[in-house]
Amino acid sequence: MATPSKSFFAVVAGVGAGTGGAVAKRFAKAYPVVLLARREESFKDLVAEINGSGGRAIGIPADATDAASVKSAFDTIKNELPGLNLAAAVYNVSAGFGIKPFLEFKLEDLDSSLKGNAHGLFHFAQSTLPLLLESVDSSPHPPSLIVTGATASVRGSAKFANFAAGKFAVRAITQSLAREFGPRGVHVAHAIIDGGIDIPRLAEYKHKFNNGAPDGLISPDSIAEDYWHLHTQHRSAFTQELDLRPYVEKF
Amino acid sequence: MATPSKSFFAVVAGVGAGTGGAVAKRFAKAYPVVLLARREESFKDLVAEINGSGGRAIGIPADATDAASVKSAFDTIKNELPGLNLAAAVYNVSAGFGIKPFLEFKLEDLDSSLKGNAHGLFHFAQSTLPLLLESVDSSPHPPSLIVTGATASVRGSAKFANFAAGKFAVRAITQSLAREFGPRGVHVAHAIIDGGIDIPRLAEYKHKFNNGAPDGLISPDSIAEDYWHLHTQHRSAFTQELDLRPYVEKF
Amino acid sequence: MATPSKSFFAVVAGVGAGTGGAVAKRFAKAYPVVLLARREESFKDLVAEINGSGGRAIGIPADATDAASVKSAFDTIKNELPGLNLAAAVYNVSAGFGIKPFLEFKLEDLDSSLKGNAHGLFHFAQSTLPLLLESVDSSPHPPSLIVTGATASVRGSAKFANFAAGKFAVRAITQSLAREFGPRGVHVAHAIIDGGIDIPRLAEYKHKFNNGAPDGLISPDSIAEDYWHLHTQHRSAFTQELDLRPYVEKF
Amino acid sequence: MATPSKSFFAVVAGVGAGTGGAVAKRFAKAYPVVLLARREESFKDLVAEINGSGGRAIGIPADATDAASVKSAFDTIKNELPGLNLAAAVYNVSAGFGIKPFLEFKLEDLDSSLKGNAHGLFHFAQSTLPLLLESVDSSPHPPSLIVTGATASVRGSAKFANFAAGKFAVRAITQSLAREFGPRGVHVAHAIIDGGIDIPRLAEYKHKFNNGAPDGLISPDSIAEDYWHLHTQHRSAFTQELDLRPYVEKF
Repeated sequence: MATPSKSFFAVVAGVGAGTGGAVAKRFAKAYPVVLLARREESFKDLVAEINGSGGRAIGIPADATDAASVKSAFDTIKNELPGLNLAAAVYNVSAGFGIKPFLEFKLEDLDSSLKGNAHGLFHFAQSTLPLLLESVDSSPHPPSLIVTGATASVRGSAKFANFAAGKFAVRAITQSLAREFGPRGVHVAHAIIDGGIDIPRLAEYKHKFNNGAPDGLISPDSIAEDYWHLHTQHRSAFTQELDLRPYVEKF
Repeated sequence: MATPSKSFFAVVAGVGAGTGGAVAKRFAKAYPVVLLARREESFKDLVAEINGSGGRAIGIPADATDAASVKSAFDTIKNELPGLNLAAAVYNVSAGFGIKPFLEFKLEDLDSSLKGNAHGLFHFAQSTLPLLLESVDSSPHPPSLIVTGATASVRGSAKFANFAAGKFAVRAITQSLAREFGPRGVHVAHAIIDGGIDIPRLAEYKHKFNNGAPDGLISPDSIAEDYWHLHTQHRSAFTQELDLRPYVEKF
Repeated sequence: MATPSKSFFAVVAGVGAGTGGAVAKRFAKAYPVVLLARREESFKDLVAEINGSGGRAIGIPADATDAASVKSAFDTIKNELPGLNLAAAVYNVSAGFGIKPFLEFKLEDLDSSLKGNAHGLFHFAQSTLPLLLESVDSSPHPPSLIVTGATASVRGSAKFANFAAGKFAVRAITQSLAREFGPRGVHVAHAIIDGGIDIPRLAEYKHKFNNGAPDGLISPDSIAEDYWHLHTQHRSAFTQELDLRPYVEKF
Repeated sequence: MATPSKSFFAVVAGVGAGTGGAVAKRFAKAYPVVLLARREESFKDLVAEINGSGGRAIGIPADATDAASVKSAFDTIKNELPGLNLAAAVYNVSAGFGIKPFLEFKLEDLDSSLKGNAHGLFHFAQSTLPLLLESVDSSPHPPSLIVTGATASVRGSAKFANFAAGKFAVRAITQSLAREFGPRGVHVAHAIIDGGIDIPRLAEYKHKFNNGAPDGLISPDSIAEDYWHLHTQHRSAFTQELDLRPYVEKF
């Protein structure tokens, strides 16, 4: 791993065994990275792995849906990484996934999706955008806010009302931020992850995705490469939205 | 006005001087109508007007964002219209409109949009869908749930993050309901109202819309005709989504 | 049938046993109608039926893909309906349908789609838009150009490359015309017909559509009602695009 | 420049001073590249530049709209690069750009767009897909067909009917190919270039794009990096479509 930047850092919210962890490791090749997750066990091993291989990582327990928790995390960051500026912020939190006949859903189900997705992005964006704006003139790549979406970001499937509500809301916010902060030099991008992700938790169901075709689940490392690519795009050619799906996925 | 149906009624949530009121009057030509709004003054004159011209209308104060209030309203309906079945339900509530630089928004602003739009539709749909399902075999037209959207339902413009979040969420829910309840015979439709509406409150700003062109603001009665048309569509040809905008509107 | 207008007429291109014929009969309730089809047998019975029931219809053989043929048809119209103005023009021609592995397609297949769809609309729009513009101030409803689309207008499915190419092209043209001619008072609308249509030719395959569910094929008369509704929309509330599909259709 | 592959090559159709040339140079870092353009002067200097800097390039005059010309070009390629397999094919031809009131367009204008865009891609895809399929098991990255789109690929603006028709058609074909050939291992992607490109021809109009903001025109080299990134995506995470626009571009 290259020596991480002494001037800039990246922060990833929603870190675990899947996309968030892979993104943290990818960005750690260039920057010190801050890993946010609700529970320490979600980032503990990743932090150790990055720090043990020449990178620099800090894990901070934080609940994205709680304004005070997010604020406190960014106060901690300021103390832990004094003088460093923010180059990239990745919002990878997802919540409220559930497939049910609509009449069986409770308001709590909807709220879990709206809060975990939309509230969380709201707090994360309010904390990171001021820092990203400060980096516009100095960052090695345009400072970036990258947000993870899903099939449900663009399609309200039957029995997915609540999850889709939260994911559509996140896409709305992301589009709006891209239009407001793009002209100020911050790259806001949204990735539609249209398929199952190859994470340990899905290992035993692997045969159910695309009939168990090889590479029928999305590699988190591939997503991480895409996010890194988005971050390094020249400001004359920002991508606002892209889709990512296995070659065998129906769409 | 024709004698209203003795077997079916319609309910409109979000009634006032604009779309909701016009829709109530249009559906009152065929059905007794229930008008829901938070404040009695929003529906008082309309109820009187409909009842005074041969129709039948009931106004019930209700807060769509409050599950108990919505439930209580439907209990009242059951008592007031015993034996009648629901033929059409229109969700026309909007909330959380606001244009601001993102960093000036408060969580309350986002919540006002998510609740007024998504929570409200959630409660309204949970109360009306079971009644609409009961009417599938008997209703003169396919029982319908029609939802009012806006430009912000499909576009997250700069400084519109919060309003768009709620409107995107509503669209997600509506799509999902269409896919779940369409095959069961209920018509779920979403109308994207892409322009200013010609309501008294906007009268003094009329010159600002489309340079004051004649008919540059959308006539609420026209929207009402469209909703009625959606309601009367044959089940072999349901529209899930349509847009409505003044001929002079840029899009 | 009401006495047809003495001042305005409608023209439908692509008339036969399905949508085009139903649309012609619907518009014949208000206007003399001109039916265009390549072969006389496509409109002969319809013309007789309309004329025999109090309406007025003229059939003209014309090939929409051939500029001279379209021009000649409109010359004939001018002679046959002297002094009448055009209130509504419906483009319902479809061509180039074919499902094949891409590598088995020939250029002729692609061309059949591009010509039957895009060339045809081009000629039809160039002939009708000047006439529609002349009617803006006098027509009982905003003069209208309504175009029939399909699932393939918005989705390039596997093995549908050619048909989708033509249908996407038609949608592009229709959007562009809506943006240019809407502000001048002409209503340009596009209907996405997303399902099989209930025409004699499909009768024996009926069980294959939506498992043979009742009303699982779209009723042409329903489409015709929608087109009439589009034509009668107030200019403050034009619909540019709507979808139409059976309640049981997956989408 | 690294030594180009001895086993695989890339081909770029539509090469000149802008995107095509930059893409050719980028892919030349890994593969011998074949440059196709109608006129030799479009690729002459590029071929020399690549060959002079350690890469390998072949220029072949070819008219993408002419089946025989495309076939002949691929015969030439077979002779010039015996034993090499195709790893990447980029279709960057554009034609038929023109902004005019619809009634002033001629059929030739529409045809120039349909042919230059849709016919051209048809021929190019028919020639390259069989070769790309042959490379699926051996290519260092999933064999790729990448197609250049524009704003007009997704939006039919006023007075853009013809150009949009061709661009929409190309998008339709590309989607269809992605769905047919993706599951067979070929990556088919479509890039929506939503802005002016920084090419010599536009130099004197630079102040007109985004008020002359720095980097207000898209750098061709940035597009080239994106195409290379698309080519190197893992097959578990293919992007089918992305947009690219300057940070200051309104959208």
